[in-house]
Amino acid sequence: MYQNSAHSASPSSKARAEAASPVLVEVTRGTLVESRHRGAFAVCDAEGRILHQAGDPERLVYPRSAIKPLQALALVESGAADAFGCTPAELALACASHDGEPLHSEAVTAWLGRLGLSPADLECGSHLPYNEAAAHALIRAGKAPGPEHNNCSGKHAGFLCVARQLGAPLEGYIDFGHPVQQTLLGILEQMGGLDLREAPRGIDGCGIPQYAMPLGNLALAMARLADPAGQPERRQAACLRIRAAMAAEPAMVAGERRFCTRIIRSTNGRALVKTGAEGVYGAALPERGLGIALKIEDGAGRAAEVVMGRLLRRLGLISEAEAEALQPILRPSIRNRVGRIVGEIRAAEGFPE
Amino acid sequence: MYQNSAHSASPSSKARAEAASPVLVEVTRGTLVESRHRGAFAVCDAEGRILHQAGDPERLVYPRSAIKPLQALALVESGAADAFGCTPAELALACASHDGEPLHSEAVTAWLGRLGLSPADLECGSHLPYNEAAAHALIRAGKAPGPEHNNCSGKHAGFLCVARQLGAPLEGYIDFGHPVQQTLLGILEQMGGLDLREAPRGIDGCGIPQYAMPLGNLALAMARLADPAGQPERRQAACLRIRAAMAAEPAMVAGERRFCTRIIRSTNGRALVKTGAEGVYGAALPERGLGIALKIEDGAGRAAEVVMGRLLRRLGLISEAEAEALQPILRPSIRNRVGRIVGEIRAAEGFPE
Repeated sequence: MYQNSAHSASPSSKARAEAASPVLVEVTRGTLVESRHRGAFAVCDAEGRILHQAGDPERLVYPRSAIKPLQALALVESGAADAFGCTPAELALACASHDGEPLHSEAVTAWLGRLGLSPADLECGSHLPYNEAAAHALIRAGKAPGPEHNNCSGKHAGFLCVARQLGAPLEGYIDFGHPVQQTLLGILEQMGGLDLREAPRGIDGCGIPQYAMPLGNLALAMARLADPAGQPERRQAACLRIRAAMAAEPAMVAGERRFCTRIIRSTNGRALVKTGAEGVYGAALPERGLGIALKIEDGAGRAAEVVMGRLLRRLGLISEAEAEALQPILRPSIRNRVGRIVGEIRAAEGFPE
Repeated sequence: MYQNSAHSASPSSKARAEAASPVLVEVTRGTLVESRHRGAFAVCDAEGRILHQAGDPERLVYPRSAIKPLQALALVESGAADAFGCTPAELALACASHDGEPLHSEAVTAWLGRLGLSPADLECGSHLPYNEAAAHALIRAGKAPGPEHNNCSGKHAGFLCVARQLGAPLEGYIDFGHPVQQTLLGILEQMGGLDLREAPRGIDGCGIPQYAMPLGNLALAMARLADPAGQPERRQAACLRIRAAMAAEPAMVAGERRFCTRIIRSTNGRALVKTGAEGVYGAALPERGLGIALKIEDGAGRAAEVVMGRLLRRLGLISEAEAEALQPILRPSIRNRVGRIVGEIRAAEGFPE
């Protein structure tokens, strides 16, 4: 359905973009729904058949970090993963938006060390770890965060491996025209079944190029990661290896308290979910051969998680018993400053099924 | 228009709440509008005549911290401000959602000290200062944040003054039935021109009651703060004193880098703007006798600021020259982790004028 769809500015694209997506999530406080989040989602198979949807699957989105597992395919397919002896933990880090715990930053630094490189070679920039304890430890020590603490540092370490394997310059590996980025573009086009040469472009928070694509094509790309049977053999093997790494090392994909890590662990890898900035989420469901892509219109991560959880429940990926244990992330409470529950974030009444 | 309007659950209130508000703000990245924020606003005079609006002015909102300047009226009207020698800086703090800089937390602690009280008497709970330098200083010192660092600590110090002045118990001053909260409820009903006894209720982040009211009535309450000519004399005097305090001490209302402080300072108090959580903003425009209330549907503060800035420009409250200096908050840039500008947050094309 989305194969090579014409996605670039069609006459109707602006009107389409401004059509209201349905309300998917409600934020309550006391007896009132205080805020509402609209969004779109698509669940499809590796042939691009949409099984469930809300909103417009042609809506253009930047996939942001939701495609890190697809970008990690380059690490395997280029031969870099074997050449540099990448462990499953490192492959999972290449797929990660991690919390910057010592677990993550130390593994990235050690990985770079094997290449004769250091965090100074990463072009992702720096920010304090998302993990509060890790951030406070740095502050207490009077240390500035380094690029290894950037939530994208594992992905960037992987890019450096690919650059070295390709014999390309290491410096500038984040630029549009660099062989690494061209390789990633090719993978995204093949997996998403579309031509991105004329797609709207932007720069991600970590400096790499982003290409806008229809939400349905993002779902297709995730479906093909889940079910790569129709892909070339080398791609099939890479998909299996990346999926196995995410399933084996869920803590490396995000962090102990994070939605991605908890869902991957709880489902034993039956749901390989990956967050992206601005309310994007992707998932590959290997046992079902399905992919999910969703985008919250306003960019809110709090809503994206609730929608992903609802879809996984709807698709039977989370059992009743698992749902009970995951309640704090499937239907999060809102607490005031003394810890009292004053509201919740939940799937909207009338959530499209 | 909104005088004593029936606001509680009417048959149409659910359908109304779910009707899509217009897109007010766009978040761009490269050549794509990546995210969109919908919302409603009302600009009205002290008679409740709406001059400008978008979305449904009957939509119920919790006013959250946008009504702190209205709540501060109790501090003056009760006689507490005079009895306890409250300075303009303290009155401004009572209106504040402050950054928890030493400027703020030390002033609150000193104020409480004059009452023979300490931050331990505040029932707002604690959180790290919003101001990064202040937060890091606490972390480096190995100190936990105290209630004085809570962004609402000035408001709560004011409530304690009112409780003492009323001869009411200090403990439990945040409860629905406490004389302080009943006094605040009365002020809100009078200024907003409505009966809130049956209104949906919730608990704010700092523990105090919140009452849902139509957005238009919130605008009316702010208009009456701007133009209290129709109010009893004591109310008029209190409005003037609170307005003067906010105008004289803008840094106390928020913090040096914050939207509220910068707008109040830049306009020399011609626009007394006050943020609230979940995408609410209020403003009193004394020279124009107008009030503004706005609510971003999804609760995003980044959008609420841009809408408020646009409305102030539209109403002529910010000159061309001032707008240039305020550009970083009127149309904020989005930067990636190495500081490169990659997008912006701006009023949507087709913003309702």
